[in-house]
Amino acid sequence: MGGRMLSSPEPTLSTMAMSAAHGEDSPYFAGWRAYDEDPYDPITNPQGVIQMGLAENQVSFDLLEEYLREHPEASDCGAGFRENALFQDYHGLKSFRKAMASFMETIRGGKGRFDPDRIVLTAGATAANELLTFILADPGDSLLVPTPYYPGFDRDLRWRTGVNIVPVNCDSATGFQVTAGALQAAYDEAAAAGTRVRGVLITNPSNPLGTTVERGVLEDVLNFVARHDLHLVSDEIYSGSVFAAPDLVSVGELVDERRARGGDAAEDISRRVHVVYSLSKDLGLPGFRVGVVYSYNDAVVAAARRMSSFTLVSSQTQRTLAAMLSDAAFAAAYVRSNRDRLRERHGHVVSGLRRAGVACLRGANAGLFVWVDMRRLLDEATVAGELRLWRRVIAEAKLNISPGSSCHCREPGWFRVCFANMSLETLDVALHRLSCFIKKWKQEQQEN
Amino acid sequence: MGGRMLSSPEPTLSTMAMSAAHGEDSPYFAGWRAYDEDPYDPITNPQGVIQMGLAENQVSFDLLEEYLREHPEASDCGAGFRENALFQDYHGLKSFRKAMASFMETIRGGKGRFDPDRIVLTAGATAANELLTFILADPGDSLLVPTPYYPGFDRDLRWRTGVNIVPVNCDSATGFQVTAGALQAAYDEAAAAGTRVRGVLITNPSNPLGTTVERGVLEDVLNFVARHDLHLVSDEIYSGSVFAAPDLVSVGELVDERRARGGDAAEDISRRVHVVYSLSKDLGLPGFRVGVVYSYNDAVVAAARRMSSFTLVSSQTQRTLAAMLSDAAFAAAYVRSNRDRLRERHGHVVSGLRRAGVACLRGANAGLFVWVDMRRLLDEATVAGELRLWRRVIAEAKLNISPGSSCHCREPGWFRVCFANMSLETLDVALHRLSCFIKKWKQEQQEN
Repeated sequence: MGGRMLSSPEPTLSTMAMSAAHGEDSPYFAGWRAYDEDPYDPITNPQGVIQMGLAENQVSFDLLEEYLREHPEASDCGAGFRENALFQDYHGLKSFRKAMASFMETIRGGKGRFDPDRIVLTAGATAANELLTFILADPGDSLLVPTPYYPGFDRDLRWRTGVNIVPVNCDSATGFQVTAGALQAAYDEAAAAGTRVRGVLITNPSNPLGTTVERGVLEDVLNFVARHDLHLVSDEIYSGSVFAAPDLVSVGELVDERRARGGDAAEDISRRVHVVYSLSKDLGLPGFRVGVVYSYNDAVVAAARRMSSFTLVSSQTQRTLAAMLSDAAFAAAYVRSNRDRLRERHGHVVSGLRRAGVACLRGANAGLFVWVDMRRLLDEATVAGELRLWRRVIAEAKLNISPGSSCHCREPGWFRVCFANMSLETLDVALHRLSCFIKKWKQEQQEN
Repeated sequence: MGGRMLSSPEPTLSTMAMSAAHGEDSPYFAGWRAYDEDPYDPITNPQGVIQMGLAENQVSFDLLEEYLREHPEASDCGAGFRENALFQDYHGLKSFRKAMASFMETIRGGKGRFDPDRIVLTAGATAANELLTFILADPGDSLLVPTPYYPGFDRDLRWRTGVNIVPVNCDSATGFQVTAGALQAAYDEAAAAGTRVRGVLITNPSNPLGTTVERGVLEDVLNFVARHDLHLVSDEIYSGSVFAAPDLVSVGELVDERRARGGDAAEDISRRVHVVYSLSKDLGLPGFRVGVVYSYNDAVVAAARRMSSFTLVSSQTQRTLAAMLSDAAFAAAYVRSNRDRLRERHGHVVSGLRRAGVACLRGANAGLFVWVDMRRLLDEATVAGELRLWRRVIAEAKLNISPGSSCHCREPGWFRVCFANMSLETLDVALHRLSCFIKKWKQEQQEN
């Protein structure tokens, strides 16, 4: 390593290995490094950076701990462990797939049914999204993705697949909801650029918006997909984190409704719909690496099952979670409590931000973050202006938040602020710091 | 599903999803299905198929069970569990990477050092091999792989990467060891076909041969790789399952030796060498999905770390195994006992097969299988003849063994027979069945 002179050149690696298409050079990940280098700790480093760029859920972990304490058999390595550890099961444990299907139904209040045999397990939603992209699109093809979108999609959908993302530009005038016009514009843009569109990928609830997709919007998306012979991937990893009205309308619910009415069109649309789920957000277990591909299309299920060889879930972890989630009373109580706690936390952060002088997107009802309007704090309404503000927030307020431009938001000045990956005390420190930062900004404005 | 008439065509999937490049239609996987449909059980299905096509290790699992019984803290969800479960650690737990490095050194008797910071964790060796292929080769490029080789490589190295495998044909005249001539012939063949060779992938110990690669052969391979500006992937997932002399010579040992002698050539070769490891075979934990990419090349480590996002290992499992493998006394005792038991099991199967009338490859000293010479049982020395014999063994002896042709062996009549994925009693039933089958075959020969 370093500057030693070499007599021979470095052996060459693949174009993929050397490309920047993994997207990890974006401010989204750069902000994580700022935190890593100087992490806040109330005792040992009270002036450190507070990480508000990470959508993790710590607010309900005590419920999981309590369950595991009361049910040591879920995690011990006694009876039944031998079978789980010794064999590599490409299909995933039947008991775990059943428990997952049931948990996905519980989250949706029973609206929409899930067949355990259509559940393909992957090591997290990251792998699930990549796997579906490999299955639905050829290199050079495109997926339409509404903006703002999760920065990791640049890696997950593009890097190893060679597929492009064509942004569907949404803006604050419609509360960032997708419109049929925006979809068509993106489709036309892709066609003009000579790339074949193979599908649409949405997040519902939306990351980074923290809102569920309206029923009418979802119907528009389904109709668009059917009309243009496309696929729809609905990433619903925050579906159990909807904490306020309106309730989630899952694409599975619409598929079931259309099929109940009958007809070939309903069968056709069902074969175009694929759902991604994970336990990283709703259950707050990202370290466990549990993702799901759920497809209504038999050929996609078969291909996904084969591809899952590259990304299987530890059988030890499947066994522990099968015990936990097949306890229907526990699962229902967890989902209820987690929602209540997220609602309270969300209310707390929204009012704290309001007092500090910034507003959140209206209608937010889900997720582990708020989408914050800081447009009036920009020195100019450009991405450069947004990144200047972002760097000041890191340097002066010692807060890592995610700039909207890292989410490909077209309107500069929006930021994603995570609120569930820290204690309430730390959140209050963060809100106080932001309040001071904005006061200082106001003073500067008056002085100029 | 099924034959219902559809008014609209099925929505199209990617070329990759519909291609047969996953290789799972080969007899190797077909034999698994024969077993799945009629699995042997000594009590409930004594006439069922015995699975000898699966390289799994059950002979030492009691040692792991004993450890976990005596160390419940390794698997409980108490102290320290919160940190592991809540956070997604792209680098893998430091404690686990340290334990893995130390275990890899223990296996090699201290010959060759491993730096925990160069260990990239993946969900099994399947993902590790694919990941290295993505990093080292572009679509359309080729890797040279000596035959016979593990049938799964057709999926792991080719399917999603678009990379080709060019076989390096080895045969019984040299005990199937790789020769410089065979490497050069494969390289020339690739060049003639217009595909760019980017590397060589070997298994050491070899799957399916059950032999370690000779030191001189390994030196030849390294020199070949340096001369042609290639990479070398050494898949060493059976390195802890070497049960007889000669000891394993790992490529890491040669890299360390060359570097100790100094010079730019040694530095150059080190940057071309990448090792794959896993706990599925030596520790017998395929369900836990723990694989490793170990590279001496900084850029490969960095790219592999990024790509591992698609295939991370459960933190619960990392935690359990970190506790187990960092217990140096336990790890050393396990490796010793596992070797003793495999040696005994291997001796048992070799003599049983000899009594039945078939010989195994000489010099076998490793692995969970034997490479069996059944050439004299063929009705003709072709792949078709080999597959006819294979189907008879499944149908009449009710044994699933893997035909050499599924491993791309150029000489018809060799079969891989696994011996560690069953009890000794079941193994004896299998050997008895094969003995009866061969007696019957001899009678037929005499009658004709």
